[in-house]
Amino acid sequence: MGLVVQKYGGSSVADAEGIKRVAKRIVEAKKNGHQVVVVVSAMGDTTDELIDLAGQVSPMPAGREFDMLLTAGERISMALLAMAIKNLGHEAQSFTGSQAGVITDSAHNKARIIDVTPGRIQQSLDAGNIAIVAGFQGVSQDKKDITTLGRGGSDTTAVALAAALDAEVCEIYTDVDGVFTADPRVVKKARKIDWISFEDMLELASSGSKVLLHRCVEYARRYNIPIHVRSSFSGLRGTWVSNEPQGDEPMEQAIISGVAHDTSEAKITVVGVPDKPGEAATIFRAIADADINIDMVVQNVSAASTGLTDISFTLPKTEGAKAVEALEKTKSRVGFDSLRYDDQIAKISLVGAGMKTNPGVTATFFEALSNAGVNIELISTSEIRISVVTRADDVNEAVRAVHTAFGLDSETDEAVVYGGTGR
Amino acid sequence: MGLVVQKYGGSSVADAEGIKRVAKRIVEAKKNGHQVVVVVSAMGDTTDELIDLAGQVSPMPAGREFDMLLTAGERISMALLAMAIKNLGHEAQSFTGSQAGVITDSAHNKARIIDVTPGRIQQSLDAGNIAIVAGFQGVSQDKKDITTLGRGGSDTTAVALAAALDAEVCEIYTDVDGVFTADPRVVKKARKIDWISFEDMLELASSGSKVLLHRCVEYARRYNIPIHVRSSFSGLRGTWVSNEPQGDEPMEQAIISGVAHDTSEAKITVVGVPDKPGEAATIFRAIADADINIDMVVQNVSAASTGLTDISFTLPKTEGAKAVEALEKTKSRVGFDSLRYDDQIAKISLVGAGMKTNPGVTATFFEALSNAGVNIELISTSEIRISVVTRADDVNEAVRAVHTAFGLDSETDEAVVYGGTGR
Repeated sequence: MGLVVQKYGGSSVADAEGIKRVAKRIVEAKKNGHQVVVVVSAMGDTTDELIDLAGQVSPMPAGREFDMLLTAGERISMALLAMAIKNLGHEAQSFTGSQAGVITDSAHNKARIIDVTPGRIQQSLDAGNIAIVAGFQGVSQDKKDITTLGRGGSDTTAVALAAALDAEVCEIYTDVDGVFTADPRVVKKARKIDWISFEDMLELASSGSKVLLHRCVEYARRYNIPIHVRSSFSGLRGTWVSNEPQGDEPMEQAIISGVAHDTSEAKITVVGVPDKPGEAATIFRAIADADINIDMVVQNVSAASTGLTDISFTLPKTEGAKAVEALEKTKSRVGFDSLRYDDQIAKISLVGAGMKTNPGVTATFFEALSNAGVNIELISTSEIRISVVTRADDVNEAVRAVHTAFGLDSETDEAVVYGGTGR
Repeated sequence: MGLVVQKYGGSSVADAEGIKRVAKRIVEAKKNGHQVVVVVSAMGDTTDELIDLAGQVSPMPAGREFDMLLTAGERISMALLAMAIKNLGHEAQSFTGSQAGVITDSAHNKARIIDVTPGRIQQSLDAGNIAIVAGFQGVSQDKKDITTLGRGGSDTTAVALAAALDAEVCEIYTDVDGVFTADPRVVKKARKIDWISFEDMLELASSGSKVLLHRCVEYARRYNIPIHVRSSFSGLRGTWVSNEPQGDEPMEQAIISGVAHDTSEAKITVVGVPDKPGEAATIFRAIADADINIDMVVQNVSAASTGLTDISFTLPKTEGAKAVEALEKTKSRVGFDSLRYDDQIAKISLVGAGMKTNPGVTATFFEALSNAGVNIELISTSEIRISVVTRADDVNEAVRAVHTAFGLDSETDEAVVYGGTGR
C-alpha cells in the first residue's frame, strides 16, 4: 500500500456537509493502509466572491495582490478539511502551497510550476498525518511571493505533488463518475471510459472535454503518474488515465475514445488573400503579436481564375474583437478583400488512437453528420483526432449522431452529474 | 519625516467602501513624506463567519488548523487594501505575518511574539512601497506553523512592527475619536483625552476600557513607542499614549485621567473561612490550578466572636462555573461554610497618576457614589487607581456621577462612535 494523492474540487467541498463527506472518504483511504496527501480547491463560489470584492476596490487588480487575495480561498477549505478529519479521530495537518514546496515562476495569476520540494509534507506523512495541501497556489522562486497557477491549477498541484512524492496514483475527485465518451449533458447514453491513454486524453482535453485540463494531463504523462478521475459523491470506480491499461481486468484499447465538442470558439475568415508567399505569415504574425492563441487553421487551394484564396481559423470567442482589430491593421499590407467574423460555430472532434489503423473512420464520421443533416464548414485532422466545425445550433444533434455511429452508446443512461463545477 | 505604522481594525475595513476610504488616508500619510507600514485586521464579520464554519465541521477545532483558518481573514483584507492603494496610483505590497517576520511561540490561538525580523518589509519600504501587513498572525519559531495572537492581536502586531522598524509613532485607527475620560456610550459629556501616560493607560485598559488592550500598551511602553489612537472616519487628532506629553502645545498631566467600568466580571464570596494561616492559599491555589485569572481580592478582619472571615474575589463571568466547581472540591479541606456567586456586579475604577499627590481623591470618589445612592460592595486600590464593586444596575449612574464630581465633563457632547467594533 503506497502513497495516494487525492484532489477535491470546489463543488465537492462547497459547504460544511461536503467537507465532512470528503473527510470520511479520505479517512477510508487512510484506513485501507495508504499514506494520503489531499489537494483541495476553494469552497464552492469562494473564488468568484473574492474576485467580485477585488473588482469593487480596483478595476484592474494587480497580479501579486490578486494572488494573495485568491489564495485565501484554499486556506479556508484546507483548514476546515483538516479539522473535519481530526474530528473523525485521525491526524491531519494543512499546508499552503508555499509550505508544501510548490515552487513557481513569477507569472502571477498563471504561474508555472518549476519545482516541488515536499519535505514538510513527507515529514508530516512519516509522522502518521494525513497532509492537506492548498491547490492552485505556490510561491515564486525569486521573490518568494505567493502565486496562483491559473485554470486547472488544483489538478496540476495534485499531479505535481504525486510526481514529487512518487505516488501510486493521483485521484482527481469531481462531480461526475469519470471521463465519458461524450458530454453526458448532451448525450444521455454516453458511457464512462474505464481506461484511456494519456495521448487520447490530451486530445479530448484540447477538443473541449472539461473533466481534465490539458496542462494537468501533460504533466502526468511526463512523469508517468496514473490519474484516476472519479466522483466524490458516488465512490464508484472512475476513469484511469495512464500509459498502459491498469486495474484488475485487461482492457483492450477502443478504436474511438470519445466525441468532444467545444462551443467556446469563433471563426475568422480572411477573404480574398493573394495566393503568394508570405501572405499567411503576415496574417498570423499579427495574431501572434496580439498574444492570441489560435486553434484550427484551414486554407484551400486558390481559385485559378482570381489567384485569390480564403484563410479561416478558429480562436477563443473572448479574443475575437482583439483579433479582428489586429487583422484590420494588416489589411493594406496583405491586400485581402474582407474579414468575416462568426461566433455561432461549434467544433466536434472524434478522438482515438485506434483510428490510425482502422480505415474508414473519417468516412463513417462524415456520413453520420450528413445523415443528421449537419453541414461541415471546416475540417482539420491530427494522427488520432478528426475535428469539424459546424453551426452552433447543430452541435448537440451532431455529437449524438456521431456517438451512435461509432457504437459508443451504452445500454442505459449511466451518466450522472452530481453538483456544480469546481476550479 | 520618518516611518509611521498605522493599524486599521475590522470596522474600518468592513466593506469595499471602507477599504477605499482607508486607502485614501494611507496615501495621505505617504504624500506627507512618511514611509508607511499598515497593519490591517480581517474585514468586519469575517472572523466570526470563519469561526462559525469551523463549528460546523468540528465541535472542538484544533489549534493549528484553527489558526490556519482564521488567518485567511487578514489575507483577504490586506490584499484588497493593497489593490485599492495601487488603484490610487501608489505602490503597495501586502505581507502575511510570516512574511513580515512576526515570530511567535507555538501557543496556537494565543501566541506571544518572540521576535520581529522585518527584513522584507524594510526592503519593500526602501523600494518606495507602502507595506500592508496582516495583523493578528505570525509564524511559530520551532515548527514554522501559522499562529494567531489572540485578542488585541492586530494592535500588538502594529506596536511590535513599530518597535522593530523604529517608527516615529504607531497610529491605531478605530471607530471612536480616541481614548475618552469615560465610555462615551455611558457618559455623553465624556472628553477626549489629548495625552495619557503609558501607566494610566495600562490601568484604564485593566479596568474595562476597551479602546486599547493592556497587552498592546505594555509592549509599547517596553519599547517606548508612542501610540496615537484616532478615528479612521473623522481624521481628527486623537489621543497620544506615551511616556512624555507630545505634540505642539505642552500638556499638563491631569490628576484624574478617566473613569473606567467593567461589567464582564462576577464576584465569588467564600463565606465562613477559618481565620488561620494557609486557608487563603488553599483557596487561590485551587483557582490557579483551574487556570482562572482573578482580578480583585478582598478579605476583611475576622469577627472576634467566631474566628471566621469571608474572602471575596472577582473574575471573568465566563470562568464562574469552573471556579465554583474548583472551590467546592476544596470545601472539606478548607472547612468554609458556603459559596456565594454573584454575576450582577459592576466594577468602577478611577485612574490617574495625580492621585498619588492629591489627597482627598478617595473621599471625593466615595462621596460622589454616596450622593448618587450607589452602594459600595468591595474596594481595592493601587497607587494610581481606585476600584469599587457596585450593583450592575447602578453602573451607568455611578460612572456619570464620578465623572462629574472630578470635573471631567466637557462643555459639549463631543464623543461620537462611528461604526462597530474591530478585532
